[in-house]
Amino acid sequence: MKAAVQQSVPLAQAYAAIRAHSVALAAPLSAEDAGVQSMPDASPVKWHLAHTNWFFETVVLSQVPGYRPFDSRFAYLFNSYYEALGPRHPRPRRGLITRPSLDQVYAWRAHVDAAMAGAFDDESLQDAILLGLHHEQQHQELILTDIKHAFFSNPLLPTYCAAAPAPHAITPLDRISLPGGVSLIGHDGGGFAFDNESPRHQVLLQPFRIASRPVSNSEYKAFIADGGYRRAEFWLSDGWARVQEEAWEAPLYWLKDNDGTESVFTLSGVQPLDPNAPVEHVSFFEAAAYAAWAKVRLPTEFEWETAAPLFAHGAVWEWTRSSYDPYPGFKAFEGIAAEYNGKFMVGQVVLRGGSVATPPGHIRSTYRNFFPPATRWQFSGIRLAEDI
Amino acid sequence: MKAAVQQSVPLAQAYAAIRAHSVALAAPLSAEDAGVQSMPDASPVKWHLAHTNWFFETVVLSQVPGYRPFDSRFAYLFNSYYEALGPRHPRPRRGLITRPSLDQVYAWRAHVDAAMAGAFDDESLQDAILLGLHHEQQHQELILTDIKHAFFSNPLLPTYCAAAPAPHAITPLDRISLPGGVSLIGHDGGGFAFDNESPRHQVLLQPFRIASRPVSNSEYKAFIADGGYRRAEFWLSDGWARVQEEAWEAPLYWLKDNDGTESVFTLSGVQPLDPNAPVEHVSFFEAAAYAAWAKVRLPTEFEWETAAPLFAHGAVWEWTRSSYDPYPGFKAFEGIAAEYNGKFMVGQVVLRGGSVATPPGHIRSTYRNFFPPATRWQFSGIRLAEDI
Amino acid sequence: MKAAVQQSVPLAQAYAAIRAHSVALAAPLSAEDAGVQSMPDASPVKWHLAHTNWFFETVVLSQVPGYRPFDSRFAYLFNSYYEALGPRHPRPRRGLITRPSLDQVYAWRAHVDAAMAGAFDDESLQDAILLGLHHEQQHQELILTDIKHAFFSNPLLPTYCAAAPAPHAITPLDRISLPGGVSLIGHDGGGFAFDNESPRHQVLLQPFRIASRPVSNSEYKAFIADGGYRRAEFWLSDGWARVQEEAWEAPLYWLKDNDGTESVFTLSGVQPLDPNAPVEHVSFFEAAAYAAWAKVRLPTEFEWETAAPLFAHGAVWEWTRSSYDPYPGFKAFEGIAAEYNGKFMVGQVVLRGGSVATPPGHIRSTYRNFFPPATRWQFSGIRLAEDI
Amino acid sequence: MKAAVQQSVPLAQAYAAIRAHSVALAAPLSAEDAGVQSMPDASPVKWHLAHTNWFFETVVLSQVPGYRPFDSRFAYLFNSYYEALGPRHPRPRRGLITRPSLDQVYAWRAHVDAAMAGAFDDESLQDAILLGLHHEQQHQELILTDIKHAFFSNPLLPTYCAAAPAPHAITPLDRISLPGGVSLIGHDGGGFAFDNESPRHQVLLQPFRIASRPVSNSEYKAFIADGGYRRAEFWLSDGWARVQEEAWEAPLYWLKDNDGTESVFTLSGVQPLDPNAPVEHVSFFEAAAYAAWAKVRLPTEFEWETAAPLFAHGAVWEWTRSSYDPYPGFKAFEGIAAEYNGKFMVGQVVLRGGSVATPPGHIRSTYRNFFPPATRWQFSGIRLAEDI
Repeated sequence: MKAAVQQSVPLAQAYAAIRAHSVALAAPLSAEDAGVQSMPDASPVKWHLAHTNWFFETVVLSQVPGYRPFDSRFAYLFNSYYEALGPRHPRPRRGLITRPSLDQVYAWRAHVDAAMAGAFDDESLQDAILLGLHHEQQHQELILTDIKHAFFSNPLLPTYCAAAPAPHAITPLDRISLPGGVSLIGHDGGGFAFDNESPRHQVLLQPFRIASRPVSNSEYKAFIADGGYRRAEFWLSDGWARVQEEAWEAPLYWLKDNDGTESVFTLSGVQPLDPNAPVEHVSFFEAAAYAAWAKVRLPTEFEWETAAPLFAHGAVWEWTRSSYDPYPGFKAFEGIAAEYNGKFMVGQVVLRGGSVATPPGHIRSTYRNFFPPATRWQFSGIRLAEDI
Repeated sequence: MKAAVQQSVPLAQAYAAIRAHSVALAAPLSAEDAGVQSMPDASPVKWHLAHTNWFFETVVLSQVPGYRPFDSRFAYLFNSYYEALGPRHPRPRRGLITRPSLDQVYAWRAHVDAAMAGAFDDESLQDAILLGLHHEQQHQELILTDIKHAFFSNPLLPTYCAAAPAPHAITPLDRISLPGGVSLIGHDGGGFAFDNESPRHQVLLQPFRIASRPVSNSEYKAFIADGGYRRAEFWLSDGWARVQEEAWEAPLYWLKDNDGTESVFTLSGVQPLDPNAPVEHVSFFEAAAYAAWAKVRLPTEFEWETAAPLFAHGAVWEWTRSSYDPYPGFKAFEGIAAEYNGKFMVGQVVLRGGSVATPPGHIRSTYRNFFPPATRWQFSGIRLAEDI
Repeated sequence: MKAAVQQSVPLAQAYAAIRAHSVALAAPLSAEDAGVQSMPDASPVKWHLAHTNWFFETVVLSQVPGYRPFDSRFAYLFNSYYEALGPRHPRPRRGLITRPSLDQVYAWRAHVDAAMAGAFDDESLQDAILLGLHHEQQHQELILTDIKHAFFSNPLLPTYCAAAPAPHAITPLDRISLPGGVSLIGHDGGGFAFDNESPRHQVLLQPFRIASRPVSNSEYKAFIADGGYRRAEFWLSDGWARVQEEAWEAPLYWLKDNDGTESVFTLSGVQPLDPNAPVEHVSFFEAAAYAAWAKVRLPTEFEWETAAPLFAHGAVWEWTRSSYDPYPGFKAFEGIAAEYNGKFMVGQVVLRGGSVATPPGHIRSTYRNFFPPATRWQFSGIRLAEDI
Repeated sequence: MKAAVQQSVPLAQAYAAIRAHSVALAAPLSAEDAGVQSMPDASPVKWHLAHTNWFFETVVLSQVPGYRPFDSRFAYLFNSYYEALGPRHPRPRRGLITRPSLDQVYAWRAHVDAAMAGAFDDESLQDAILLGLHHEQQHQELILTDIKHAFFSNPLLPTYCAAAPAPHAITPLDRISLPGGVSLIGHDGGGFAFDNESPRHQVLLQPFRIASRPVSNSEYKAFIADGGYRRAEFWLSDGWARVQEEAWEAPLYWLKDNDGTESVFTLSGVQPLDPNAPVEHVSFFEAAAYAAWAKVRLPTEFEWETAAPLFAHGAVWEWTRSSYDPYPGFKAFEGIAAEYNGKFMVGQVVLRGGSVATPPGHIRSTYRNFFPPATRWQFSGIRLAEDI
């Protein structure tokens, strides 16, 4: 018990810091900016601020005696996908919720924050609080990917933040060799992890090599220059269909001036393409096609996790050559959170690592991110691997 | 010339009044409300404020020496459908324009208003200014229909204005007989009219009777109660298909409580259904089906225009049984305004009259409103007619 | 009575001739050819053979005591759009009915023909029989338009009949002037007519000129060469949208060889484009755009009907500038046939005349054909008119 | 060399037998039946007969000096998905190819068969011939699944073959325990295998139990009766969406009479539901939902392959809980066949075993069938597994 109380201090601090970070991310945005939804896959920033608040209200505060919801109608508006909690506002229509206003959402967050102050000392709530914090961090990344897409959908190409990223230095590409054999995969139980990272289990690997850094923009340009988007031979069948349907010619957000100069839309507006930066905003289809062109392959998520201590990561999410399947012995979280991860385990591809948009402290080598293979609006890139 | 100068005084006054009315219509809305687009047919209120301003900049101020556009990029953003003016932002994506902000749009309107001050005395601009004012009045009605639809798309069903409409008294239904014969149709040239109201020409009518008032809610409920939405025999083929695809069971905005009580969503929020008020928000398909059920028909637009001095109108737009075809000898406006009306003359149905949302002074008996036959989000109702 | 009996002899003869013509039209086709449906708007030839048979069974033989349907399940399969007769096989799935076989459909037709032998003398059935015959003639034209589209959908471009049409001679283009005034429009009651051609009524026309022949291929090529499909200014709004969505560059069935030579797919296979033949397989949108380019217009259906004795017609259906609205005092047929025409009276455009595919004797100047404005697979062309 | 010559005799025999079997499968069908395509995923039987012939022409006979293709245009018509071979007829339009006729396709097959007679002794062609035969066997199964779907799309519900299957006896359900550990997965190189079955490699398994037989119809009915199709808690997210979009209430082909009696559409027409037969025509989504309801899970493809010598299989394809990913070290076939399997390795789920529609001799324990998770028109069923 005492340990728990002691632990509650940093939990309260973590809560304060993480919640403040969400608000800070929305600070550069007007209420109009925060309300817009540029495609069904993306959500308004206001919705993210509200949904993460709804999560604490639903998962934590509903267990606190005497807690009164700020507005009982918000449960319908800001549920994302939890079937067990009943019907909810349709995802593609999140941009239509002009009321509650952004100010009202902030007032709601303050209401929840006040109520949470009494919850940190209750040991029975700590798992739920921790889950809420990690959930909110996931949405912090989505706030950035979604506002980037929204601003890109505006012909004026607005700027989210003034400071442009510093150019990347040239980094030599090493191929790290690993011997294969039995590898321990999955979370070891120390600290927080999502259910999909467990149970920890053994996997047999063949010997393989893995790149010391992600593919850079200049390397990816060589693929384009060699007809990468016009040669079916490199592509998975569904990927090739998508290339043609959507007329892909480059990663999302790449722009070409009239004179052919390449630039790229960023959260700091349109910037020159940095040749040494990791290529980002590519789909799994593009990642796999690039690897085929380079006559190598993508690593499996097991190879990636095994090799992760040997290379830097966290600049871009890295597509693996692993479909998102359950680990042997997988058990979903209990209760409402049962719908958190398990029900998405088909038709998606695992990404590993983290990105510039991932909140500090939210990157770990066992983390399994996942998206459908055509997804491009995440900060997703490519790391290569090959058989030995 | 002198006459023109004299006339410019009321034109300047009209300009000031109409422009102020647009701003007044937006006053109850937050920037978030004004930015939302609930379906491709509707536009954000901010877009209406900007587009009407763009119209004056394009049609009037572009002819004023020395005028400098507020922001040259707005020409792309706020063109509606004028092909001759080049490419433009896609209609279904108008809700994504979070920048310029609502405040910037107001600043732009002030910039245009200031520049217009010097334009009223230039006789050569007066036709363009008049067109711009009537154009802005059309969008004033759309501001109301579109924000009504947007608020209806929000599960919280927000309220645009506090005051609920007063209940209607029972009005007896008379059938006005007219002898037919040659009728003069179209605008007589006195005052402003759109190009589609000309030329004035003779039409031969058969004897007919026309109702003295629109169909009421209580009358329409009898149609519903008699299986109106379940009996194909009353419906045009495309209408019946639509009934089934979209599961129509009542006019748009009708709500049914758990106990079966009917209420209706209005700009003043949810209100009891007024039995004596004209039924509104019905499509042409519903209007024609109601008439078939009542064993009569809708009037042609020529019958309507001929009979209009004999009855009150202006509560709801009234669907006619006339497709929107050009009058014999029709000539479109010159210049940019050539695209104003003529290019829509197929596949649409004429409505006559005006509605509670139509700005004062914008109703005249020769006015030809038009929408596709499935349209329901306008304030559209039903007046019956029959052969003698 | 006696007159009726006498009339029954030619009715039986007409029946025999028309029924045999349907079979003759299908003779060049294999069972595979006759079963295919190339798009939802078109139907398999076998379906046309069956549906016209179903019509006689439903409208005539169901009134004959003792008649036993060939197969009671066919009522569901071969109803086209008669809601009053209950549910039916979905239109886009007509190509899936491999059973009954073509041979079985012929056997069914023989069964009906045998039963019909006893029906011609029953005066009470004569209207229904006449309707059935005119109905079958309408489907004879569709047999040709639909198999043409089906064969065009096959990369082998099969040939329906061997004989290529003879080249057309150059025909000078005259402009026939008419004075306008009161014109009698609609069917005079002598002989058969559809309900949509009545009642005969007076229409007031302005003076106009009308072309003595349809627009030729060479004339239409000048429109194309002048950027007709690339210049929005000529097009109705919905037409321009269609041009871009479907990348129209020429009438349907026009082909371009690698060296730019134009040829055209016909029922006799690919043939050189005949410069003097009427342009055909154009939509109303293209007809109206051509007229706008030529700085004239299309005739209304009332102008067309008034002028029809003064020019040859019947080579191509001619788009008019009239939406398909009911005539004043329109009454639909009684009974099942009530759904024949009236329920389509919105969103369609009237064509007048007839085409090379129209059965002999099925052309009359009051006939109102109608299709949606984007329709191209009918034998539809252009006749110009203008104000005086 | 000598061995190869000797081997060529059985190859010729195998060729004759397999080719004859394709023709025998089509024997009950009219040309009309063989031409129909009931959905984009399915193909006409005639197309299967032609495509398998095209495969031999392309992969084998193109290497035979002096071989002349029967018709050079067929390469375009009957290529399925081989991008390297250039453009091809669009898949959803395969049902429009009424020419060549079924008879012509048979003539083409005879032409190929005659040319093949000289190919069996050429050792360099034997791998290609073997591939062609296994390819043809895959299409033999599709002939049955596709004609079943086509006949089900016809309201007359035609019968493919007269003989109804004998009822299944009750089979007790055992749970076979396996210890886990290192398992050798993939083909051992003896005899033919597809590229996706290699390389053989070691996989580490946890201890598990697997059912001795597939789930039966009566067991599946208990799932339905317990609200299986109405309770989201059992379903993967995409599966639940599909249940609602397509209103799934039972496996494909299940029918319910007015009195609630369940029957099922089979190749022998409508038959009573056999309670002891394996449930078939379920999607992966349904298989996974059933397993969740039963509080167990599906086996991975590695568990299945390891346990396969311990149970009978071959009645229904069995969905596994494995996404279709490449084996470590996977190399696609060389040449044209490179597109055979590898390019589909994303977004699909592995099925193991074989079905009543699988040709004799085409079932092996390393065979990896794969389909998207919503697929129902294959003979696909459920085998359960669980952790120990």
